[in-house]
Amino acid sequence: MGKIAHDQHVPAIAGNADITLAATVSRHGEGIADVPHFKDIDELIASGVAIDAVALCTPPQVRRAIAARAIAQGWHVFLEKPPGATLAEVAQLRAAADAAGISLFASWHSRYAPGVEPARAFLADATITKVTVTWREDIRVWHPGQAWILEAGGFGVFDPGINALSIVTRILPRPFFIEEAELDFPANCDAPIAARIRFSDDAGLPIDADFDFRQEGPQSWDIAVETDRGTLTLHDGGARLVLPDGSEAEHKAALHGEYAGLYERFAEIVRAGQSDVDIAPLRHVADAFLRGRRLTVEAFVE
Amino acid sequence: MGKIAHDQHVPAIAGNADITLAATVSRHGEGIADVPHFKDIDELIASGVAIDAVALCTPPQVRRAIAARAIAQGWHVFLEKPPGATLAEVAQLRAAADAAGISLFASWHSRYAPGVEPARAFLADATITKVTVTWREDIRVWHPGQAWILEAGGFGVFDPGINALSIVTRILPRPFFIEEAELDFPANCDAPIAARIRFSDDAGLPIDADFDFRQEGPQSWDIAVETDRGTLTLHDGGARLVLPDGSEAEHKAALHGEYAGLYERFAEIVRAGQSDVDIAPLRHVADAFLRGRRLTVEAFVE
Repeated sequence: MGKIAHDQHVPAIAGNADITLAATVSRHGEGIADVPHFKDIDELIASGVAIDAVALCTPPQVRRAIAARAIAQGWHVFLEKPPGATLAEVAQLRAAADAAGISLFASWHSRYAPGVEPARAFLADATITKVTVTWREDIRVWHPGQAWILEAGGFGVFDPGINALSIVTRILPRPFFIEEAELDFPANCDAPIAARIRFSDDAGLPIDADFDFRQEGPQSWDIAVETDRGTLTLHDGGARLVLPDGSEAEHKAALHGEYAGLYERFAEIVRAGQSDVDIAPLRHVADAFLRGRRLTVEAFVE
Repeated sequence: MGKIAHDQHVPAIAGNADITLAATVSRHGEGIADVPHFKDIDELIASGVAIDAVALCTPPQVRRAIAARAIAQGWHVFLEKPPGATLAEVAQLRAAADAAGISLFASWHSRYAPGVEPARAFLADATITKVTVTWREDIRVWHPGQAWILEAGGFGVFDPGINALSIVTRILPRPFFIEEAELDFPANCDAPIAARIRFSDDAGLPIDADFDFRQEGPQSWDIAVETDRGTLTLHDGGARLVLPDGSEAEHKAALHGEYAGLYERFAEIVRAGQSDVDIAPLRHVADAFLRGRRLTVEAFVE
């Protein structure tokens, strides 16, 4: 019951007729009026409150154990992004979910931003020549008190950057891979505060990403895709799509927001008895750490 | 045609009746007497020499592009370990191989060490309580002139360490994941020279790995597995297996070596029209970079 749970999950659940909030669980965070609240998942299990599914919104470093416990209870599991602190643990949760016959959802909220599906539809028919991703935000404004982000396993600037990657992996018609990466580690941190990545694909398409957590003043969550039919741009983290002719696409998703879309999808996969676990964005982040050059930069003090 | 090609691949191919060395390719390395030699894969393609399959023994940073080119020719591809510099590129090579109907082999030579299969067979029936991996070697002795190892994408101490991981992922009956890792980066290098990793699995099994490239004097390539039936130890990179009763297992693989086993397996999957691409060892390495704490240590000068 940290920031994202209160800001996004609780309202999205309240707005979804298929889902009722039966309990909240948090070691330190606050619950919700009139909803049973427990300190940890063991207390929840012991309580006997009837549960079909859980949404896990903890930092990634502690999520795996809770997810494994929930799967063992036969509960469907919604994982906030990123779905884990390592790829191996996500693969294993997926295997456990399949064995238990429950639905596992690796959620990528930015994919439910209103501009994303129209961008994907446009790009399916275009010849793409260049992609530029600019994701620069002020960590002090958007992540106050979230020290875990710059700790090992917190992903640093890839915590927001993985949102960009979740969009790019969705809208581009072909998969891509890292050719070069530079990661800036503050002298006192185990996760990068900035990163510059050059991706490419089998056709040699240049895809450049600039992620920075030190952006003061105007903030940027933009993706520009140059094509034979002109340049398409996504702004505001995918919320606004401007097509080459200058028009802005209209779309119903704008009516209710990313997390409403996520919970609709979660209800859909539970009904269908499926899982939805796309590891591509997390794999790119792991690849950036694996492949990238490391630069040490000024220590970060919140 | 670097060190591993001359030391291992050429003799193993010479000893395999199913495979004939039709050509060698190397920008800088030397060829073999009486075998056509080319500077790069484009020269090989242009030469018209009849080729069914290629073994790619370059450093990982440059291997993807060559592999993609070979797959496009319809050639079966044997990849030295690690199979790529990133997980995304390996996934994509696999997809390309499947689409082209050719066999892709992500080789893990240490899995063909003679102690490995008997250890796996023993552990299948045991209750395992602790695993300790000690992989400490002298980079100056074993990797002279291989500067790429400590460059970005060269994996550093995981270049040998991934051999240990390829064995552990083969002999343990259950998958595991990283809980904690510490990586030591020399002040002048982009890849770690040492790493300490704590893995675990769903049952809480402790798996500790100690990788170090700075080991002078006696070298260690050892894996100890404690079980309810006593402790099993693999020594010398899997070449020697000591069972709890003190006996050493006998096995035919010892007769011809790891690379002979690899080429037998490659011929087998080509005949069967299959691929063999297990990414688990590479995924653990990427996870270690992603999840680990970074320590800066003394600069390394060869």
